[in-house]
Amino acid sequence: MTGSFVSPATRQRVRDLATPIARGLGRLGLTPNALTIIGFLGTCVAALAAAGQAWLVAGVMVLAFGIFDLFDGALARATGQASRFGAFLDSTLDRTGENLVYAGIAIGAAAAQFTVGVILAGLALTFASMVTYTRAKAESLGLHGEVGFAPREIRLVFLAAGLVLAGIPSGVLGFGQAWLGLALLVIAALAAITTAQRILHVREQLKEG
Amino acid sequence: MTGSFVSPATRQRVRDLATPIARGLGRLGLTPNALTIIGFLGTCVAALAAAGQAWLVAGVMVLAFGIFDLFDGALARATGQASRFGAFLDSTLDRTGENLVYAGIAIGAAAAQFTVGVILAGLALTFASMVTYTRAKAESLGLHGEVGFAPREIRLVFLAAGLVLAGIPSGVLGFGQAWLGLALLVIAALAAITTAQRILHVREQLKEG
Repeated sequence: MTGSFVSPATRQRVRDLATPIARGLGRLGLTPNALTIIGFLGTCVAALAAAGQAWLVAGVMVLAFGIFDLFDGALARATGQASRFGAFLDSTLDRTGENLVYAGIAIGAAAAQFTVGVILAGLALTFASMVTYTRAKAESLGLHGEVGFAPREIRLVFLAAGLVLAGIPSGVLGFGQAWLGLALLVIAALAAITTAQRILHVREQLKEG
Repeated sequence: MTGSFVSPATRQRVRDLATPIARGLGRLGLTPNALTIIGFLGTCVAALAAAGQAWLVAGVMVLAFGIFDLFDGALARATGQASRFGAFLDSTLDRTGENLVYAGIAIGAAAAQFTVGVILAGLALTFASMVTYTRAKAESLGLHGEVGFAPREIRLVFLAAGLVLAGIPSGVLGFGQAWLGLALLVIAALAAITTAQRILHVREQLKEG
């Protein structure tokens, strides 16, 4: 309905699965904001792994911390600690972490003289950040901005898959870094289309108003 | 007062200077949105120049289209064509253009085997986009986000200066790409600090509320 690949029902099922684990982390004394910061630091390490061309490690960590990111919100809701600042911090650090992973890939690709990888990582970073900007900016004007093909969870799936496939010893699948290039191409293209969709969606809403 | 380097009075003086030129462009039949799109396309060419290591050309174009960007808003105000969509389109394309220039620099630096340049361009892109995101996100929550050292105009001045100095034949100043690296370092550091300032500013506002 929103044009997203992820239905609200799926989102709810994932949240239900996350709650018991999140409560367990809470019992260890961790607050939702602490989980947000741990997830961000983990993603920074994934970005460093990518900068060092450890694609497989980076991909596994992107996936792991992408899943880990469910727990801060789940813990906050389960324990009545949900706050507007917590949600703001989570959104901001999630996006900073995602940006840093693309930057890390650009660095690793440059070191590997994989210039196409640098180009595609730069475009993925450029347009992924515009997807999040256009939504926030639309909402700052009192409009809806949550349309389009490439919300963050979809981008992370492609990103993790591309990194993992690039990192598997080339005897197995034989394409190596081309997988990463393909994933970044899909992310950059979907994110550019999503940015355009959001611009047009804002225009339509302002015409109606 | 806002923590910005650019005072409201300076901003107003610049606007006053831009108005007659903007009116002239309007008399050629150009609308404010057409000026926004021309400026964006010009910035895309600057990004391509950077990707081709034509640093001097890229720097001059960043500066020229940074100034050109004053005219869309000035024309809109002078002719009563100011619209919320026009402002949204301008913000969005300005930021996309800025992102693309950093991405172009990363590509050019990678081709020149200037790895430090790739790292710093990646960090500048990451944090410059977070500066704009945190403000838009804060405003979407009904809060103020316009604090911090590194709004867009300041970033563009450093960016243009770094590109131009890197592009001047090295006999003149003798540092070449190191100037670009220094400018990117300043941009990335100021933008990271600004992002942190905006996160803390949101936290304070939510505490008060």
